[in-house]
Amino acid sequence: MGLTFDHHTLGQRVLFGTGAAVDNTAAAVAALGSRRVLLIADPFVADLADAVAARTPVVARIRDVVAHVPIERARTAVAVARDNEVDAVVTIGGGSSTGLAKIVARDTGLPIVAIPTTFAGSEATDVWGMTEAHRKTTGVDPNVLPKIVVYDAALSTSLPGRLAVASGLNAVAHAIDGFWAPRADPINRALGTEGLRALIPGLRALHANPDDLDTREQLLYGAYLAAVAFASAGSGMHHKICHALGGAYNLPHADTHAIMLGYVISFNGPAAPDAQSRISAAFDELPGATGLFQLRRDLGAVKSLADIGFAETDIPDAARIILPSIPPSNPRPVTQADLESLLHDAWAGVPVKQEGP
Amino acid sequence: MGLTFDHHTLGQRVLFGTGAAVDNTAAAVAALGSRRVLLIADPFVADLADAVAARTPVVARIRDVVAHVPIERARTAVAVARDNEVDAVVTIGGGSSTGLAKIVARDTGLPIVAIPTTFAGSEATDVWGMTEAHRKTTGVDPNVLPKIVVYDAALSTSLPGRLAVASGLNAVAHAIDGFWAPRADPINRALGTEGLRALIPGLRALHANPDDLDTREQLLYGAYLAAVAFASAGSGMHHKICHALGGAYNLPHADTHAIMLGYVISFNGPAAPDAQSRISAAFDELPGATGLFQLRRDLGAVKSLADIGFAETDIPDAARIILPSIPPSNPRPVTQADLESLLHDAWAGVPVKQEGP
Repeated sequence: MGLTFDHHTLGQRVLFGTGAAVDNTAAAVAALGSRRVLLIADPFVADLADAVAARTPVVARIRDVVAHVPIERARTAVAVARDNEVDAVVTIGGGSSTGLAKIVARDTGLPIVAIPTTFAGSEATDVWGMTEAHRKTTGVDPNVLPKIVVYDAALSTSLPGRLAVASGLNAVAHAIDGFWAPRADPINRALGTEGLRALIPGLRALHANPDDLDTREQLLYGAYLAAVAFASAGSGMHHKICHALGGAYNLPHADTHAIMLGYVISFNGPAAPDAQSRISAAFDELPGATGLFQLRRDLGAVKSLADIGFAETDIPDAARIILPSIPPSNPRPVTQADLESLLHDAWAGVPVKQEGP
Repeated sequence: MGLTFDHHTLGQRVLFGTGAAVDNTAAAVAALGSRRVLLIADPFVADLADAVAARTPVVARIRDVVAHVPIERARTAVAVARDNEVDAVVTIGGGSSTGLAKIVARDTGLPIVAIPTTFAGSEATDVWGMTEAHRKTTGVDPNVLPKIVVYDAALSTSLPGRLAVASGLNAVAHAIDGFWAPRADPINRALGTEGLRALIPGLRALHANPDDLDTREQLLYGAYLAAVAFASAGSGMHHKICHALGGAYNLPHADTHAIMLGYVISFNGPAAPDAQSRISAAFDELPGATGLFQLRRDLGAVKSLADIGFAETDIPDAARIILPSIPPSNPRPVTQADLESLLHDAWAGVPVKQEGP
């Protein structure tokens, strides 16, 4: 039948430059023709926020950001934007700051300028998320994609090593899972491949020298490429598993990703030779699962689901919850038994078995 | 100083499917909410145009397309669009059909659905071009980028082998020259790298089996990725040389590109190790210039500027014309003597000297 795809490239401008966040943000706001900015920034980045406020026409500020975008906070932010006749939103911070700005954009149509301070990648997607009574709702809306992203590697140096590693591994998962996701195509595959090419050596280098700015730059653009690829390709088996585990068992998001990825690569790799070769290439030609397992070990990342509080007795139920969400696009069929086996390996943290082709 | 860039990703939708051109075009027109289509198609594709017209609300048709978009034709097309209160433009054909549609879009703001039948890649860029009294004018305008591109590998089978090869090598030049072009960045580098990864084996396979649809699909998406990369990164040394030679000496466009590229790679490669490694990887680890020279020879492509009518005595003047246009971003400085030497090798068609690092 041949290659078939329907690809939507989302328009976005990216200003990248270490130490240039304030200048680039001022330029971005001016490029939008904005005169009334809502500035969202959590207290950790108050100094940067003050510097940005001194250079842009800020008329309203939200000075605290809560994780997972609780609905009450979102409603308040939208009201602040409307009451102050804001014409653009500037957000400084991690996924939760960007997430709050996205709800404002969703409900008002206002453009966002995002200055990320982590490798979360939310600034690269048109996906919004909100939490109401502990239930997370998400959606897709082209209005929520920031119009302009300002990347400055110096901003992430405030991110502690362990969080930077987890954030970086999350980006690696974006790229890799995209290769077998429902909307995988040559375009998003190109971005994911290049993302990996930057992220893998970048993570090793970060571990050796946490303050090196060149390394942080490499991780930043690698994470961006991986996030764009993920937004385009959708959620593959890895993200479906992690989403289910996080939702049903309240496991910490970044750690779950860091643990599960090697097992998913080991399972899918033999049925996906093109993906396997792209992953191996990023790991200097080691089989991908082996490479990822070594990297995690070298980075001192958490290694088993048991370590983060998942119980062995929950494995059968977890597999039952996950099974219906595995995408039909997965390179090989997945059974209840497959999932129980995979989850058991991940629970025990056994070294990844790299299956032969 | 670190990595600095200002990247503009252009939003575009790509519908890819062999044999699905008519269905996908109908879907694209519907997605735009269009009810009054101007259909531009040259006589070579009349059957396809008729099939599209039977499935879309066409109110006006332009049935002949002239190369290089002469200004009188462009004016007529714009008038036809206005007189018929057209709300979308559908174009079927090569660079000249797309080019005509782009002038209509430039002057009216109307959206374009492009169905390319060559590997020219014009559908992937926001660059327009027009010819007036033998002078070519070009410009950049986001309105001229087609909103939706419909790729169908079966359409290019009407392209004779020699033109397909020249078109494919043109696409290779898009990708390679982008690596050292003024706006090269990690994002467009990702697209160019993947484009090469598809184009090089695709061109070899095309030569062996010109009718293989899988191969044509690979060339089609490879050419798309390369064109997007080129639109983003801008013109590097290769395109500046070819533009000058084409303009001043009226040399055929595609042949000039096919000849010059290996010499430019040989010259720039040693000063651009990252680009060199990306090019080599696409040529199974041969040095890039060697790989390209072999590919051209294997494809039976034209091999020297002498073969296409360029005179040895014109070399010094040509070098003088080219010199001021070499981008400052070029990986190494370029002198009059460098250009004369390069042009002399290209004029003689000597095997490319792969300089050591």
